[in-house]
Amino acid sequence: KARKDPTYSNRGMTLEEDLNETNEFYLLNNIAVIHKKPTPVQIVEVNYPKRSAAVIKEAYFKQASTTDYNGVYKGKYIDFEAKETKNSTSFPLQNFHEHQIQHMEKVIQQDGICFVILRFSSTEEMFLLEAKQLLSYWERMKVGGRKSITKEELLSTAHPISLGFRPRIDYIKKIDCLYNL
Amino acid sequence: KARKDPTYSNRGMTLEEDLNETNEFYLLNNIAVIHKKPTPVQIVEVNYPKRSAAVIKEAYFKQASTTDYNGVYKGKYIDFEAKETKNSTSFPLQNFHEHQIQHMEKVIQQDGICFVILRFSSTEEMFLLEAKQLLSYWERMKVGGRKSITKEELLSTAHPISLGFRPRIDYIKKIDCLYNL
Ligand SMILES: [Mg+2]
Ligand SMILES: [Mg+2]
Repeated sequence: KARKDPTYSNRGMTLEEDLNETNEFYLLNNIAVIHKKPTPVQIVEVNYPKRSAAVIKEAYFKQASTTDYNGVYKGKYIDFEAKETKNSTSFPLQNFHEHQIQHMEKVIQQDGICFVILRFSSTEEMFLLEAKQLLSYWERMKVGGRKSITKEELLSTAHPISLGFRPRIDYIKKIDCLYNL
Repeated sequence: KARKDPTYSNRGMTLEEDLNETNEFYLLNNIAVIHKKPTPVQIVEVNYPKRSAAVIKEAYFKQASTTDYNGVYKGKYIDFEAKETKNSTSFPLQNFHEHQIQHMEKVIQQDGICFVILRFSSTEEMFLLEAKQLLSYWERMKVGGRKSITKEELLSTAHPISLGFRPRIDYIKKIDCLYNL
């Protein structure tokens, strides 16, 4: 079901690079408008040299309060996070932060379309897992259950995505089918 | 129509501060999930000191490729930009960048709800102007017409928003009415 597509391989590209390329393809072809949010940074000191651009001299990475990607497809709000693992048999839940989980709950409550894209880097297998499913695995962990999602669980509760040429990761096609858009 | 509300004043708060407070109110009360995007920064050098957080030592501000605010309300994609002017009779179009205009066109094409919130800081008057209207003023400028939107034009083509207590700037209420959500 989630077999590896023999035709394409990710040529060492990260999941983020593949998604950026995909989103650019969607944008250029008027399929969807999805952007990765900038990395949140706490700026402490800025220099303003004469005749040249302002230079940030001291800043720190901040914890993001949302997921990384959002945008619009056919009027609907689209929101997702993407994560890779080097594990081969299960996907660790520690890849997600409490903030992101809370954000997903809020988005679902507001009827947004929310999901995660999970990649096993060793096999290049990819899954689209709807946020409501992720939340149930998160809940299971919170009450003392396992701290990961097994490959078998993904095969039965998530949707496989195979790597393509253009776009690289056609998640919008999956969403279109799943939500009858 | 766009009279100044005598009860509240913005106590020197910037439009951005008022909107952050508003979005926080919406989030806490499960009304909408809208966030300001982080400022995009090009990171050049990072130090990783032992036993303490990574420090960004050199970085530059990048031009944003989208508007500043987006999120979800009743399943719909919401996208906007907010701008203030010290002018009192017209709103200068130079406050917007070509990238932002192009982004707004893309969002409209994808059926997203897109608008700008304009504030005249001297009188505290505020307007919600739909992006499709802004685009027509932008187009007029591009073909040699005026480089601003007059107050009269705003009074007839935009929607006044008065300053409130909680939330400070209830733009979602306007959107709810305008789009019958
Ligand atoms: Mg992330
Ligand atoms: Mg801005």
